[in-house]
Amino acid sequence: MYSEIHMPKGFKCAGISAGIKADGSKDMALVFSELPASAAGVFTTNQVCAAPVKVCREHLRHGVARAIVMNSGIANACTGSAGMVAAKDMAAESAKMIGCEPQEIFICSTGRIGPQLPLNKIVPGIGKLFDSALVSHVHETAEAMMTTDTRPKVSVAELQIEGKTVKIVGFAKGAGMIEPNMATMLSFITTDAAVEQHAFQAALKRAVDLSFNRISIDGDQSTNDTVLALANGAAGNQPLGETSKDWKPFFQALEKVCFELAMMIVHDGEGADKFVTVNVSSAQSDGEANLAARSVANSLLNKTAWAGEYPNWGRIMDSVGYSKAKVDENKISICYDDVLAVANGMRTEVEQEALIKVVSQTDFAINIDLHLGEGTATVYTCNCTEEYVRINVT
Amino acid sequence: MYSEIHMPKGFKCAGISAGIKADGSKDMALVFSELPASAAGVFTTNQVCAAPVKVCREHLRHGVARAIVMNSGIANACTGSAGMVAAKDMAAESAKMIGCEPQEIFICSTGRIGPQLPLNKIVPGIGKLFDSALVSHVHETAEAMMTTDTRPKVSVAELQIEGKTVKIVGFAKGAGMIEPNMATMLSFITTDAAVEQHAFQAALKRAVDLSFNRISIDGDQSTNDTVLALANGAAGNQPLGETSKDWKPFFQALEKVCFELAMMIVHDGEGADKFVTVNVSSAQSDGEANLAARSVANSLLNKTAWAGEYPNWGRIMDSVGYSKAKVDENKISICYDDVLAVANGMRTEVEQEALIKVVSQTDFAINIDLHLGEGTATVYTCNCTEEYVRINVT
Repeated sequence: MYSEIHMPKGFKCAGISAGIKADGSKDMALVFSELPASAAGVFTTNQVCAAPVKVCREHLRHGVARAIVMNSGIANACTGSAGMVAAKDMAAESAKMIGCEPQEIFICSTGRIGPQLPLNKIVPGIGKLFDSALVSHVHETAEAMMTTDTRPKVSVAELQIEGKTVKIVGFAKGAGMIEPNMATMLSFITTDAAVEQHAFQAALKRAVDLSFNRISIDGDQSTNDTVLALANGAAGNQPLGETSKDWKPFFQALEKVCFELAMMIVHDGEGADKFVTVNVSSAQSDGEANLAARSVANSLLNKTAWAGEYPNWGRIMDSVGYSKAKVDENKISICYDDVLAVANGMRTEVEQEALIKVVSQTDFAINIDLHLGEGTATVYTCNCTEEYVRINVT
Repeated sequence: MYSEIHMPKGFKCAGISAGIKADGSKDMALVFSELPASAAGVFTTNQVCAAPVKVCREHLRHGVARAIVMNSGIANACTGSAGMVAAKDMAAESAKMIGCEPQEIFICSTGRIGPQLPLNKIVPGIGKLFDSALVSHVHETAEAMMTTDTRPKVSVAELQIEGKTVKIVGFAKGAGMIEPNMATMLSFITTDAAVEQHAFQAALKRAVDLSFNRISIDGDQSTNDTVLALANGAAGNQPLGETSKDWKPFFQALEKVCFELAMMIVHDGEGADKFVTVNVSSAQSDGEANLAARSVANSLLNKTAWAGEYPNWGRIMDSVGYSKAKVDENKISICYDDVLAVANGMRTEVEQEALIKVVSQTDFAINIDLHLGEGTATVYTCNCTEEYVRINVT
């Protein structure tokens, strides 16, 4: 499916089976840059976080990267000092393959919480990855990141900078359960643009806020969530900074890739078959709009009603009301797509059939207007089905 | 089941069918005091709240009550000014039956959000309730409060004050879905003790914090949640205040009734078949312990793992980590009942079978020690099953 996609200049990638997953499916991936690349990263804010997240945070201070090496099957979370040693070994072994500093290697893990990494499988796996990465294997790389994802996730953007073609290729996984433990969101973004590291970090943070941070599957935040971005400059442009004339189109392309990957994650939400966009407008601030939108998106009663294709606007009113956003119930209006269901906090005369028609679609929007101020926010989410429970009972 | 229970002295109660519910089952209840009673009340903090909640808040300023009149089937929420008029009419009609002020009537509704109250059924229903309340119908009263509850909920306590027998009888409903819209928690407590109104209000607030506010079914807070307590003094004791020597045993009896009712609600949680007690100890404060315990209790991934009888301690670590309570992952320990699963943030050597044995019970505890301070909290919750989703898809 992604076999036709080529990596940005100077990048190689690979996905192989190292025998970590019991079923023999792919479980290690490599994204490798032939040139030292500007590195940017955004990580889980969970206070309980995996060893590789701690190592990445440390390595990011260095600001330069040569490779991302990841495994699926085991999360290397809640593994104490032995887990930290294993994570550092994983980076050091990879650095040896390239002949670079360990700080230039970013590592990620996703899978079962608790067990230690099997270095006797990881180390040969690293060798196999670098052997395989003489050419690019985009599809296999995305595949190796998968856990209970039903499909690999890749997004591409291209733009012209100073007459040179700049490419961005991004990978993601999530939000599937892992071995069967934890939803983790991982994404790796590569570009051959030259980008100043500080500007790149700020751009990634902003792009993540506008994409990955706007999605919600079940409200549970993983110990391993990581987004990494590498810009290696192989396209030959002058390094981009925030004052460059090409900054805006570059940022937009970066944002597009992050956004597409984030939407792929929601579409692949565990057990989900509905994609729901929750828009909140006219809150007292963007922050308050976000609180209201998240409250609606995370409400189990809303998610189950969407599963039943039932336009239960009362539950939406309820979840807006118990959010921490200031609301005046007599001012709230709610549209299902463009069908007005609630005005001034009360049901309109609209036919129930018109609302059922909207929620029977696989993709619809809930548009909530608080009529209080200028704040807006959007959260992308999915429904909660019996299948979600079946997937997660172990 | 509760037919043998008698109300406290000077109280009568009744439950009848007024034709609000389409299936003809009981849908109106009355709790009536022959004497003016000290009134106390605790209400939903949802900014979107039902008309009867607004009316109760207003009437509570008066501090004296003669009756609680409630209907199930329709919530009278999101009904605008017409809903307020209907709620006040419901109180006024009831007041006429007694010959008291409307402010002495507390009204409650639970059921579908949106529709207006059918006063043409409510008003005759009020007449029928007072006709029926010549004797006490404890079981019928509890039954009329039910929506998708699978059983009525009543709790009783007795104690001696100044040689006089004082009785407390409490009713509750929840957390079932209503017609099929919204989980609402309602509870009515009656006692023939004489209690000063301010002390009674403070005692009810504290008892609710120790009982109803410690339970969580699905994290969704209703627009109609209400706890009302009436103390009519028919036992003949000197009015109790916080400095009375009998205050403590009275408070304990009140708390016991609230606690028993709260536990009945969790045991009757929608689709649930596991009762789980989440204890957090050694947090930096009781407030932080509460945040951590709620995060664990409300995590959909924890609830589904409990449904699968799978001892997924990694999800517990995760949900403690993303709570707003300060934690140090290397200090966290987790016991399933008294079986130590996690020490210093890592899995112990305990056999998986021992943990499975604990979570296979219908009632078990998750005991989390943060090893940071003196704060403790307990939250009572249940599992989330496919049946929960089935109940809530409409």
